[in-house]
Amino acid sequence: MRSNHTSGYGWTVESIMKKAMVIGATGFGGLGLIEIIRRHPGMEITQLVDIKDTGKNVSDLFPHLRGFCDLTIRPPDGIDFQEIDIAFFSTPDRAGMALIREFHKRKIAVIDFSGDFRFGTVRDYEVYAANRGLEKSHLAADLLPEAVYGLPEKYADRIRSARIVGNPGCFSICMILGLLPAAESGIISSDTIIGDGKTGVSGAGRNSGEANLYPQRHENVNTYREGTHQHVVEVENVINSLGGKKSEILFVPQIVPLNRGILTTMYMDIVDGYDTGRMLRVYRDYYNNKPFVSVTDKSPNTADVRGSNRCLIRPIVDPRTGKLVVISAIDNLMKGQAGNAVQNANIMLGLDETAGLDVPAFYP
Amino acid sequence: MRSNHTSGYGWTVESIMKKAMVIGATGFGGLGLIEIIRRHPGMEITQLVDIKDTGKNVSDLFPHLRGFCDLTIRPPDGIDFQEIDIAFFSTPDRAGMALIREFHKRKIAVIDFSGDFRFGTVRDYEVYAANRGLEKSHLAADLLPEAVYGLPEKYADRIRSARIVGNPGCFSICMILGLLPAAESGIISSDTIIGDGKTGVSGAGRNSGEANLYPQRHENVNTYREGTHQHVVEVENVINSLGGKKSEILFVPQIVPLNRGILTTMYMDIVDGYDTGRMLRVYRDYYNNKPFVSVTDKSPNTADVRGSNRCLIRPIVDPRTGKLVVISAIDNLMKGQAGNAVQNANIMLGLDETAGLDVPAFYP
Amino acid sequence: MRSNHTSGYGWTVESIMKKAMVIGATGFGGLGLIEIIRRHPGMEITQLVDIKDTGKNVSDLFPHLRGFCDLTIRPPDGIDFQEIDIAFFSTPDRAGMALIREFHKRKIAVIDFSGDFRFGTVRDYEVYAANRGLEKSHLAADLLPEAVYGLPEKYADRIRSARIVGNPGCFSICMILGLLPAAESGIISSDTIIGDGKTGVSGAGRNSGEANLYPQRHENVNTYREGTHQHVVEVENVINSLGGKKSEILFVPQIVPLNRGILTTMYMDIVDGYDTGRMLRVYRDYYNNKPFVSVTDKSPNTADVRGSNRCLIRPIVDPRTGKLVVISAIDNLMKGQAGNAVQNANIMLGLDETAGLDVPAFYP
Amino acid sequence: MRSNHTSGYGWTVESIMKKAMVIGATGFGGLGLIEIIRRHPGMEITQLVDIKDTGKNVSDLFPHLRGFCDLTIRPPDGIDFQEIDIAFFSTPDRAGMALIREFHKRKIAVIDFSGDFRFGTVRDYEVYAANRGLEKSHLAADLLPEAVYGLPEKYADRIRSARIVGNPGCFSICMILGLLPAAESGIISSDTIIGDGKTGVSGAGRNSGEANLYPQRHENVNTYREGTHQHVVEVENVINSLGGKKSEILFVPQIVPLNRGILTTMYMDIVDGYDTGRMLRVYRDYYNNKPFVSVTDKSPNTADVRGSNRCLIRPIVDPRTGKLVVISAIDNLMKGQAGNAVQNANIMLGLDETAGLDVPAFYP
Repeated sequence: MRSNHTSGYGWTVESIMKKAMVIGATGFGGLGLIEIIRRHPGMEITQLVDIKDTGKNVSDLFPHLRGFCDLTIRPPDGIDFQEIDIAFFSTPDRAGMALIREFHKRKIAVIDFSGDFRFGTVRDYEVYAANRGLEKSHLAADLLPEAVYGLPEKYADRIRSARIVGNPGCFSICMILGLLPAAESGIISSDTIIGDGKTGVSGAGRNSGEANLYPQRHENVNTYREGTHQHVVEVENVINSLGGKKSEILFVPQIVPLNRGILTTMYMDIVDGYDTGRMLRVYRDYYNNKPFVSVTDKSPNTADVRGSNRCLIRPIVDPRTGKLVVISAIDNLMKGQAGNAVQNANIMLGLDETAGLDVPAFYP
Repeated sequence: MRSNHTSGYGWTVESIMKKAMVIGATGFGGLGLIEIIRRHPGMEITQLVDIKDTGKNVSDLFPHLRGFCDLTIRPPDGIDFQEIDIAFFSTPDRAGMALIREFHKRKIAVIDFSGDFRFGTVRDYEVYAANRGLEKSHLAADLLPEAVYGLPEKYADRIRSARIVGNPGCFSICMILGLLPAAESGIISSDTIIGDGKTGVSGAGRNSGEANLYPQRHENVNTYREGTHQHVVEVENVINSLGGKKSEILFVPQIVPLNRGILTTMYMDIVDGYDTGRMLRVYRDYYNNKPFVSVTDKSPNTADVRGSNRCLIRPIVDPRTGKLVVISAIDNLMKGQAGNAVQNANIMLGLDETAGLDVPAFYP
Repeated sequence: MRSNHTSGYGWTVESIMKKAMVIGATGFGGLGLIEIIRRHPGMEITQLVDIKDTGKNVSDLFPHLRGFCDLTIRPPDGIDFQEIDIAFFSTPDRAGMALIREFHKRKIAVIDFSGDFRFGTVRDYEVYAANRGLEKSHLAADLLPEAVYGLPEKYADRIRSARIVGNPGCFSICMILGLLPAAESGIISSDTIIGDGKTGVSGAGRNSGEANLYPQRHENVNTYREGTHQHVVEVENVINSLGGKKSEILFVPQIVPLNRGILTTMYMDIVDGYDTGRMLRVYRDYYNNKPFVSVTDKSPNTADVRGSNRCLIRPIVDPRTGKLVVISAIDNLMKGQAGNAVQNANIMLGLDETAGLDVPAFYP
Repeated sequence: MRSNHTSGYGWTVESIMKKAMVIGATGFGGLGLIEIIRRHPGMEITQLVDIKDTGKNVSDLFPHLRGFCDLTIRPPDGIDFQEIDIAFFSTPDRAGMALIREFHKRKIAVIDFSGDFRFGTVRDYEVYAANRGLEKSHLAADLLPEAVYGLPEKYADRIRSARIVGNPGCFSICMILGLLPAAESGIISSDTIIGDGKTGVSGAGRNSGEANLYPQRHENVNTYREGTHQHVVEVENVINSLGGKKSEILFVPQIVPLNRGILTTMYMDIVDGYDTGRMLRVYRDYYNNKPFVSVTDKSPNTADVRGSNRCLIRPIVDPRTGKLVVISAIDNLMKGQAGNAVQNANIMLGLDETAGLDVPAFYP
């Protein structure tokens, strides 16, 4: 389909815009997609789908979108399958599990934000589901072998030809990116890698219940699900598939009073011979041609990635104890969710990987 | 000068990019310009100037800019006047007052962020300077008659041909936009218009002193400069130049714990015959073709304009008291500063008024 | 009843402790009462009552109370009426309306936090109820003539002998205290007094729904119920009962990202002959012997009253416009709710008015 | 000296109040002491000392103190040594180092908030000073052997007879209390204990420079001094003096957008035979009679200790990895500073350990 994209000059650029559907349009994930795709030169949203607020204009619900996205929200049974190049399922666990089959039958590319398609086997899914307190039976188990874990910095080639991509968990992507260079180079020697995570409140979603009311979160920090967070499975799956030392992740997440942002600090033993300088070279080499990962020798700030798709990583070899400390920071709604999903979509659709995503953090 | 602008598809668009210089590069105003112009299809920053941190790469100072803007900061005496289409002076009061003459001599368009060129007469400047506690003597008094007040919604025609534009104060623009339709239609009948303003902390600038340390501002709201804020002169100048009733502004600003955002609530008497519905029509008609002003019948949220150049305005005629209440909201660093400046620059340079600025607020 | 109160020295002071019951124990109001009465030398809580979480220890629900208050929460039908000197109803509108009769029959002093007993006539209640969207019929209309409006700075004498006190709304008390000296001295000459209010999020209560989730409130300010807030009736009732000019209040509340705090800024015309200095004397004289009101010539900060029962008031006569501006600040959970209620209880029970309440704001 | 302390009933209790001097009166530490001692039944502040703002009334500088503490600030050369039972040095490193000798000569008890007297040997001080970038020479080295580390939960007996107490660092006390039961029971088997700390911004002090301006701290989390924080020496000193396994602390602090609060999460290997249940018993037994330490099996929130002197500790033995995770939370200005100092003072002066400190956290 051809559409007109008007530049700032008033020129008209005739181009082929890819058509995106967003299901789960009114959550943080859906809204993030609307914001990103609005500035995407090769993609446009043509259908918004949700199970509530159907029939309403999204910009009546979210006034900041007026004039930028004024689509009416359709119910799932109003989806027009003819007009979709890419379907984003920004839906909770199990909400899209069965419906995705309809898209797969029609060979429409799907990116799912839940845990439904992050695992290649039913068995891994069942561990995840148990951690989350979900029903264990996968309703589309036959599709799992085709699903690809949506981590472009590692699996771009498989994502390119995938029809179903499971977009990673926000903590998972932050930790995995921080560990990949050391893990893949066989540098890690710990049985246990310690991950200490801090996340902003938007990580709990837009309708996140009483525990996330302002007076409960403001001026408060607390741990939760110590050692039992559901994202650990994903991290271990990736890290232990690289041929090096197998490690377990002991992960303690914490909620901090931010809207957006994740900072993870990881601690592990390493083989001999590395100091911070050498480790920085390993990390920089590894991410040399990855547009969204920045390796740094300064202390990462979540503010440095706020609103951007960037992951900022600092590896330090502590001279006193010999341990490797890796600090990684992302915006949980961007590289931790909608931004990473668009990056995956770009790869799947043959667009430039950075299209729609080449913006810096907003400051302050 | 021709440069190559690469789209997300990998196409190369050959175009004429306007070259911008930013002086005061490391304040919030300068950084805002870098972020906005980075996504501008017809403008690029070619020189960053400041009196401190000269010789350093701006992205060493502000890591979020790495890969987006990696220019070295020049001292003022390193400015290359040959390569500038537009000069943004994001400098404090009086800092650029004399230097701007050098640009004017060379017929380079200038937009100044301070109060130096917001007033057409020396006398008005002196009132402003007294309120601010500044020296009264204007060092470029001969240029004042040429300077245009940078309010595009009212003075676009004069801005188009201006060579010096005084970008308005953040509170001023928020209040003036809220008052213009009523004032210009002769609806206001008060001797005194009451303005109650709330601003985020970034309004005080990046190096804003002890009073703006986190523990002093977090979990605190206070009034300041009650009735004596320096932006009042600007508002009265514009509102009382429209031929209707002359009014004084009684303005009480308040600092609220936000990074970004201004919300002003104004109260005034009006002539008979208006209810909220009719007033909404007056406001909507007035701003009908203004791309950055949205009139609404819902309560404005600063979050609805955060990161965008939009001004959101709600007029209400209170049925009990007959008074007009106008609520207006902007992002003080966007429509209240750098965004409005780029809008002015677009007009001065013959570009589309919205170029670089057509992005929605980020949410949450 | 005699109980032992152990001082910091280990001395035992034998004293008569008044026994308080708190119904609505797990809201912000109930919790505030627990914190205050914990440090009260002449009052102790002996019964906590609620309709949910009954049978649980309050310190299992709120770990910060462990060791300070470990009472089990009773259901309303478990109340022991024999052992109550004062009953605090920290309940929503209409929740305690009928039950309070049971206390009244037994001559037990009651302080109600809702609007149920703030009005002396059924007619005023109906206006309030309509603004709140409540049922209009009052279920204890016969008790209204006995109920006293719980504003100790004005009605201490009536409170002293009252058996039912309606504790004022948080915005009401902040505005009334700011207006009383001018209103009672016949200084106000406006038909309309403008009130611009800013409140922290705790004002909406502990279970305040989706609109008050952290990501919706953080980094956001908005107006709401412009001109129609239910507290206006209370303010007009008091101000217009003083024999001076009758005025209407045009009140626009705003939510600001604080946990605690209200700041109101009020604007009005006044009779001739007052400048700021003279007005300060009027205010200081009026509140001369009121322990919880501080008149100041500095800009009030909500941080200056955070956690304390103090109301901070600054009157300014604007020399340009001649209007009186009054800024008043309270902690909405203290002087705006539980603190004021304990002050009322002290008066009703013949204790020192400041008992349990003589603590400064916590800083920062 | 006898003074009159008036109870809430209007009774007059004649008692002997201990007289405290606070030097460094206008920092967070000094202000915290004023707030705490104001409610102390056996101690009163009679002298406030500082090097700036001398001659001013402290309540002119901090309006929340008006009526609660209205003392004039004296310069150090205006100290009246005759009237001091306890001197609090809430001063930066090295500021009180020499002056403390004057108090020691006169046998006046001193509690110092800096690192000057936290170490028993010049050598330890030099390590600390190097980490802090301070001059190494200790100006009162002869007094070090007499100084006691002010950790009442461990050294109450020595504090009781000490004349100089070095009040611990805020992170130190939070980590040490979390480690003591395991360390003293010989349960820890790691060479390296990992400490991951999160602190509110007040930890940097009241005049904490540009890095702590509101827009830099709001909506931001970052690490700093990774592995090199000066408090590590203190933790290692205490933990490694207990006769068990010697361990190094690898500590990574993080600044989170809170006014108050520290949460530390620690990870270590342990000897066989412990699960969470048994570990909870070890911790509960250890702190059985310590009034300010609460062991819990729920996730600690900094909000649960905000404004109180409590330390909340949760030990978990992770069943997958076998590691011990200990989470501890304090208010950095209370148990992390002024509250702990008053606890030490109570012990030194023979008062009840909890006097002035038996208040719960304020919520919300």
